[in-house]
Amino acid sequence: METLRAIVTRRSTQRFKSEAVVSEAARTDLLRAAMSAPSADKKKPWHFLVIKDAKALKDLAVLLRERDSLQSAAMGIVVCADNAEQRHMGQWAIDCSAATQNLILAAHDKGLGSAWARVFPSKGRMKTVGEFLRLPQHVTPFSVVFLGKPEKPLSKRASPLEKKKVHLESW
Amino acid sequence: METLRAIVTRRSTQRFKSEAVVSEAARTDLLRAAMSAPSADKKKPWHFLVIKDAKALKDLAVLLRERDSLQSAAMGIVVCADNAEQRHMGQWAIDCSAATQNLILAAHDKGLGSAWARVFPSKGRMKTVGEFLRLPQHVTPFSVVFLGKPEKPLSKRASPLEKKKVHLESW
Repeated sequence: METLRAIVTRRSTQRFKSEAVVSEAARTDLLRAAMSAPSADKKKPWHFLVIKDAKALKDLAVLLRERDSLQSAAMGIVVCADNAEQRHMGQWAIDCSAATQNLILAAHDKGLGSAWARVFPSKGRMKTVGEFLRLPQHVTPFSVVFLGKPEKPLSKRASPLEKKKVHLESW
Repeated sequence: METLRAIVTRRSTQRFKSEAVVSEAARTDLLRAAMSAPSADKKKPWHFLVIKDAKALKDLAVLLRERDSLQSAAMGIVVCADNAEQRHMGQWAIDCSAATQNLILAAHDKGLGSAWARVFPSKGRMKTVGEFLRLPQHVTPFSVVFLGKPEKPLSKRASPLEKKKVHLESW
């Protein structure tokens, strides 16, 4: 898909087809896309925990109080930050946000639906998800991206340009 | 350009051709791309301040202690957050980071070079840039994206997949 088209037509998926799988090739493309985000001082503190186990995915969706529908996702990718690689929370949060955005764009390009469940900035969620996944102390979960075949076809409608959000030369 | 190709070949521009301009059509595409990012509770607290004035751009580059080379950018887009639309700094920072990522991907797709100068999370930078741009009190600058024609051709090399960053089922 053309880049601009992918960017403006991407939407969050509400409901997945339960039987769908994500191919290993698609998974590799998604991870490569995520790792291509810019990073402060090129530290790239991101790590990616891929979860295919249906029980773990379901538990994670419940933990994050996400719609029941997300429990049928084919795969989850937990974007994490290694605090030993980047100490500053504000910086790793920006890095991980850009990486997550690349990941969901690549998913859309592959015809996969995605739902970005936020973990950061909620301290409660960071703690609960970190414990559930048994992450090392120096690793913080940033987001969980649920992936799969969307039940409805992906949207082809482009986001509008909101002119009131644009300021020329001064506010 | 194909989406995945744009994502994995995008690089930060170090030096711009001083004479280049960014067309109004390209600017519109970039802003539409930025506004297509996901946002917590669909609040979309982002605003975009477009700067073409050469003196203002140069002053901004100096203020951000960016490379001299960025002073010859054709345009700057300051991604801001309206705190009245989203109070939680962690949430608007994620929204604005995803919007900035979309913006630089769209620029790359258009053959434009870009450099993402971080303002957030530095309190000093947020204050200084906000004052320089005379932003309202409830508006915080998040990033400045410098745009223009890159002096060197854009990279065609794809980012590698770092396998040590990928964990399957558990850390």
